[in-house]
Amino acid sequence: MAAACELCRDAGGEVLWRDGFCRVVLVADPHYAGFCRVILERHAREMTDLDEGERAALMRAVFATERALRDLLAPDKVNLASLGNLVPHLHWHVIPRFGDDRHFPAPIWAAAAREGPAPRSLDIAALRARLAALL
Amino acid sequence: MAAACELCRDAGGEVLWRDGFCRVVLVADPHYAGFCRVILERHAREMTDLDEGERAALMRAVFATERALRDLLAPDKVNLASLGNLVPHLHWHVIPRFGDDRHFPAPIWAAAAREGPAPRSLDIAALRARLAALL
Repeated sequence: MAAACELCRDAGGEVLWRDGFCRVVLVADPHYAGFCRVILERHAREMTDLDEGERAALMRAVFATERALRDLLAPDKVNLASLGNLVPHLHWHVIPRFGDDRHFPAPIWAAAAREGPAPRSLDIAALRARLAALL
Repeated sequence: MAAACELCRDAGGEVLWRDGFCRVVLVADPHYAGFCRVILERHAREMTDLDEGERAALMRAVFATERALRDLLAPDKVNLASLGNLVPHLHWHVIPRFGDDRHFPAPIWAAAAREGPAPRSLDIAALRARLAALL
């Protein structure tokens, strides 16, 4: 299974931070500036397949990503989700949400409510630096 | 704000477990047997508004809920999400997913893909007992 899984490879975005256990990747989504994924490096399906220390380490990276995105973008809300129905390899979506975004207040997986604003600018170098400082 | 928030009250489902810090509630959704919410008792918006110990305590309840649901229902996948765009009071969705459910493999907030199977049965007393044993 691991060989067939796209998240076992470095697919799907620019790596902002990594430590050998997990990586933080910036998702290229023009509607959601700062949308990040925190991806476990090894192949596992569920949080309860990890031991307690691994769970804590992965959540530490998720919460650092939330913190860094709040510091840089001041979103109205942050959405966190571990779904993995399509790609059952542990990864967390960390999504800064704004009241005028395409889906607000619905989750981004719902039907779009509006066109949404022009893409927000994001200082990627500052995001990398903030993550490095937090982690 | 707290006074206006429905999650500051005991709204929205049968309480399966609580310890004064958070509660685990069974969501009455005929399409998603075992759909639970883990709700912080006090009013806070984001995980990064909690201190490290509180974050760990809340995630411990989330992961125990995942474990209990896996033990009882053996779902194909578990979905975890903290969204809170509509009700910005920290709560985690813990959703057992099955390949034949209404939205699989999409998130449950997407458009339904099919009617879905007849409601799965769930032994609520066993779920309460499993949560109590894990927590």
